[in-house]
Amino acid sequence: MTLNIGLIGCGGIGQEHARRLQFTLNGARVVAINDLHRDAAVAFADKAQIPATFYDSADALIQAPEVQAVVVASWGPAHEEQVLACIAAGKPVFCEKPLAVTAEGARRIVEAEMKHGKNLVQVGFMRRYDAGYRALKAALDAGTVGDALLVHAAHRNPAVPEMYVGDMNITDTFIHEIDVFRWLLNDEYTSVQVIEGRKTRHAHAGLHDPVTILLETRQGIRIDTEIFVACRFGYDIQCHVVGETGVASLPEPLTVPLRSNARQGSGILMDWKLRFIESYDVELQDWINATVQGKVRGPDAWDGYVASVTAEACIEARKSKQITPINLPERPAFYA
Amino acid sequence: MTLNIGLIGCGGIGQEHARRLQFTLNGARVVAINDLHRDAAVAFADKAQIPATFYDSADALIQAPEVQAVVVASWGPAHEEQVLACIAAGKPVFCEKPLAVTAEGARRIVEAEMKHGKNLVQVGFMRRYDAGYRALKAALDAGTVGDALLVHAAHRNPAVPEMYVGDMNITDTFIHEIDVFRWLLNDEYTSVQVIEGRKTRHAHAGLHDPVTILLETRQGIRIDTEIFVACRFGYDIQCHVVGETGVASLPEPLTVPLRSNARQGSGILMDWKLRFIESYDVELQDWINATVQGKVRGPDAWDGYVASVTAEACIEARKSKQITPINLPERPAFYA
Amino acid sequence: MTLNIGLIGCGGIGQEHARRLQFTLNGARVVAINDLHRDAAVAFADKAQIPATFYDSADALIQAPEVQAVVVASWGPAHEEQVLACIAAGKPVFCEKPLAVTAEGARRIVEAEMKHGKNLVQVGFMRRYDAGYRALKAALDAGTVGDALLVHAAHRNPAVPEMYVGDMNITDTFIHEIDVFRWLLNDEYTSVQVIEGRKTRHAHAGLHDPVTILLETRQGIRIDTEIFVACRFGYDIQCHVVGETGVASLPEPLTVPLRSNARQGSGILMDWKLRFIESYDVELQDWINATVQGKVRGPDAWDGYVASVTAEACIEARKSKQITPINLPERPAFYA
Amino acid sequence: MTLNIGLIGCGGIGQEHARRLQFTLNGARVVAINDLHRDAAVAFADKAQIPATFYDSADALIQAPEVQAVVVASWGPAHEEQVLACIAAGKPVFCEKPLAVTAEGARRIVEAEMKHGKNLVQVGFMRRYDAGYRALKAALDAGTVGDALLVHAAHRNPAVPEMYVGDMNITDTFIHEIDVFRWLLNDEYTSVQVIEGRKTRHAHAGLHDPVTILLETRQGIRIDTEIFVACRFGYDIQCHVVGETGVASLPEPLTVPLRSNARQGSGILMDWKLRFIESYDVELQDWINATVQGKVRGPDAWDGYVASVTAEACIEARKSKQITPINLPERPAFYA
Repeated sequence: MTLNIGLIGCGGIGQEHARRLQFTLNGARVVAINDLHRDAAVAFADKAQIPATFYDSADALIQAPEVQAVVVASWGPAHEEQVLACIAAGKPVFCEKPLAVTAEGARRIVEAEMKHGKNLVQVGFMRRYDAGYRALKAALDAGTVGDALLVHAAHRNPAVPEMYVGDMNITDTFIHEIDVFRWLLNDEYTSVQVIEGRKTRHAHAGLHDPVTILLETRQGIRIDTEIFVACRFGYDIQCHVVGETGVASLPEPLTVPLRSNARQGSGILMDWKLRFIESYDVELQDWINATVQGKVRGPDAWDGYVASVTAEACIEARKSKQITPINLPERPAFYA
Repeated sequence: MTLNIGLIGCGGIGQEHARRLQFTLNGARVVAINDLHRDAAVAFADKAQIPATFYDSADALIQAPEVQAVVVASWGPAHEEQVLACIAAGKPVFCEKPLAVTAEGARRIVEAEMKHGKNLVQVGFMRRYDAGYRALKAALDAGTVGDALLVHAAHRNPAVPEMYVGDMNITDTFIHEIDVFRWLLNDEYTSVQVIEGRKTRHAHAGLHDPVTILLETRQGIRIDTEIFVACRFGYDIQCHVVGETGVASLPEPLTVPLRSNARQGSGILMDWKLRFIESYDVELQDWINATVQGKVRGPDAWDGYVASVTAEACIEARKSKQITPINLPERPAFYA
Repeated sequence: MTLNIGLIGCGGIGQEHARRLQFTLNGARVVAINDLHRDAAVAFADKAQIPATFYDSADALIQAPEVQAVVVASWGPAHEEQVLACIAAGKPVFCEKPLAVTAEGARRIVEAEMKHGKNLVQVGFMRRYDAGYRALKAALDAGTVGDALLVHAAHRNPAVPEMYVGDMNITDTFIHEIDVFRWLLNDEYTSVQVIEGRKTRHAHAGLHDPVTILLETRQGIRIDTEIFVACRFGYDIQCHVVGETGVASLPEPLTVPLRSNARQGSGILMDWKLRFIESYDVELQDWINATVQGKVRGPDAWDGYVASVTAEACIEARKSKQITPINLPERPAFYA
Repeated sequence: MTLNIGLIGCGGIGQEHARRLQFTLNGARVVAINDLHRDAAVAFADKAQIPATFYDSADALIQAPEVQAVVVASWGPAHEEQVLACIAAGKPVFCEKPLAVTAEGARRIVEAEMKHGKNLVQVGFMRRYDAGYRALKAALDAGTVGDALLVHAAHRNPAVPEMYVGDMNITDTFIHEIDVFRWLLNDEYTSVQVIEGRKTRHAHAGLHDPVTILLETRQGIRIDTEIFVACRFGYDIQCHVVGETGVASLPEPLTVPLRSNARQGSGILMDWKLRFIESYDVELQDWINATVQGKVRGPDAWDGYVASVTAEACIEARKSKQITPINLPERPAFYA
């Protein structure tokens, strides 16, 4: 069978998802689209040769009988309402991050889904589908380095635009680490500390960069992450898990080893879009396959909620300069 | 549109291709199958949930009106006849290597295809679709290390079965290097020398292992390749291109870097099937897309012919212990 | 000229120093020895063919007219008194770490030396003489990665004996990082935080292992160091300096790269003695050469004092679980 | 005791040896010097503060009663006569490579030394003292990768001067590989083939560069070495030994790993003088210690002779483009 998909939001990431659903992945097609900008969306679909119906509202698209599942790629503030509408319609939905712009909003989605009684929501944390993180998790789960004790991580960007300010290194950047570490470690966070040290001259005025974020988990694992978004030299994602008998690390992305100009080594990506581009394919193919089977197999609404709660605690910790507790309710059996 | 494919040969590689065409790739489905063993083939299709019609002969499958394109995954000696039948029927065909078991047979396919007047044949040299080789070729084509002068390569297997004897390290193993180096370097071979040195105690009686094969190209590039199929330690494909200003190398496959047991480093695959598994997906997706457009974009019948001629020269060079010329006609304009 | 050296303490490190002074280095000889165990010391000198006079007391050795410079390799609690005696005698002294077992004791040495009016004391922080740290410092001083912002470090031992307990991971282990980072960064510490996370099952009862220690410097550089002395897999010293334009790291020690047993990579030392063994030669040769010139060129009494003050702040920080200030007086001009 | 050394030849390498003997190494001093240019030699000794007597002839220096051992660092054509004079005088001699400019000349030294009846001659093949080669040899001798089957090597220089022409890539460059591989493998050569392939545009007119040299040993080990002296990117010495169970490689020299400018990796030396500088210290210290014990422990006259015979076979092989036998007499028991 072919899964009929309705796409809400035809901007950059929406267009990429439309193309991969239609022309790269197996078992799905885009039958309906919606966007705030009708003309641009219709022009895109024409040019890309995707014969989808345009709907004037997200809600109309969600209600359309031919739409069997929904991909939400609109801007963040619209996510909560659109996901709630999908739940109300009983339709599976893949929602790009964030699930909602507040923990409270994410909580409402969790409650609506539980009330509905069936898992429908997946959140777009694509790192869980990255071949490198998967290999690392497999090694950890196999006990290759024993129980995890410490994690040393870094999330580095060469530069960020002027509009990237304030807490965005938490809400837009560190949010990926928040999701991926608890998945990697099968653990939950209990506290966070944010350290703002010496600022690079290459960061603009509205941003303190770099920062170091320290997370503690229920098992006592300590995670230190360097967030450095004006590091100049590359988009560089590091993750080293120190276990009782060794250290396992996230593999570097594949690049051509060179010996030239008095140096040897390999490349570091400069464009973040290239780092996880393959994981989007894996993520959405897995979502299609699970959806056809009536399941949610990826990061769910509860994961989206936990990410929001943690990000809010990080922001508070930055302001207070204190070790700040992260208070999470127990994961409901519904999401087990 | 969806391309309707007939599959000839439902053994190991045939089954893998069937699954990826049906459930992984975009734009194709398997509608017909043929195999010497009817019951096993039908049982496979049932279990895999591929609703394809079984045909009693390769020829009947090729002729079947619903079959738009053919994948040949039968045993080698059958390839020539089946590919010729596809050409006669005017149907695009993807043929696993070898195109034919002799250079003469490959020559007959080339002549038939040219007489037919339209490109129809692609040969399954999947390394051209490997992300590592593609990145290496891109670096070379971009002039990253200047003009190529030398290539140092190795093709290592941990072990081979007892039935792997004689010239199989050329016809089954080195054949991949034969195809990929001329593609990588945009060049053609002019001579070959085969050196049999000290034999490992881990090779069985019917095989001289390792051997070193030296190729020369029209541009004077010298390629040395170590073929070592009982190397014990891993499936290890090495390719280092020395250019006028540096050395560019084939990336190692992605594995988890570890520090443990007094060693640091990463893994080497033990199973050759894993090394190029992703390249099969890329290869067949590209073949589907090109076929729908009426084109052949991958390695064609001429490439298959050149590989056969070169392999035969290698075998002669091994016997004679002499530097042996490789005499190739000019590439016909038809294959330009 | 040949520098005549008196050696106090003929245990493990004392014997090694005696041999290198006598048989490896240039321009010195051991003419006098002292130890609590006369017979063992004399037997050692005989066997090693070092024709040195045994003195019954450290003081007698220091006073001996033929002794031009002193090496103190006795146990820690004796260092302060012996170094003070050297200063009183106006003789250059190389003192193994610690300079004194308390910051107060180190302070007394600093004051005595300043009162004496001439630099005489060098402390045995050998890492400053390690080829790797020197190359790293040269790269940093050359601006290779711009101004330093963060340091990520680790000090890992495979195991420690039962007698290694309590604060010894600070006083015996982290003490090396304390000295080497301020030298590497040309900076001074202002605060410290010690984090005790999940304890490895391989640590014995009297030790919390691993711990993470966070240092802050006057320039705002943040240093995180993992101290993990029961890590099992190797003696592994890591130091990565994140600057405004890149990351520069401590080189790994030279080992033979191997491809074997499905892994590729190089070795990690298991024996800490091998890691810095060459730096002892460089350190003592430099001390000999500077002493002959009437200078102290290596880590001086002030450096020893700062290390003691910092270590005491680390111990306090561990107890209090608070960010603890490190209060250092300004470096006296005498030590500029 | 202190070994009194006479130095013949006070050019670049002679001056370096003088300084290390006098100021770096243990147990020796330079008491006599000779050079074609008296004034320059005397000025050097004065400036370096080496109180050595100048002798007007090499022979006078060799005869001088205070000279206990001789270092020959004159130009190559003078070596044979000077070494023969040392043998005649019964004095130990360390001779920089080449031992003689012809195999015939080296043969005369071997014969003279055997007639004299005591080992006196060491040849300056310093690679045997390089920490990397020593670690590699230790790994091979320990059976880490089983019996050696193949060696892949490279000797790359960024550039060579105009006066470097013709066979100098054999006599001045490959000569080091000739000596070090037979030591590394405990084996002797039986044949050689030289392949001149595509020439780099960066080589000047008088030189074919790069070339590949293939050596075969008595055990059947096959060694391929790329000699590429205008490679532009660095002074890069590679040696990979393929054994029955793995590959062991020469370690890269220690440099600072960097992540910067979209690349990660470490440095390659540009100056060949830095690559083996430490091995000169180890080599001469070992020579001093062995000489004091009345022994020759390093590469001896026979090794120098074998290197000459092999180099001459390489030159012949290059001219003839044939696989050329290397005919060596059995090593005399005297040199066992």
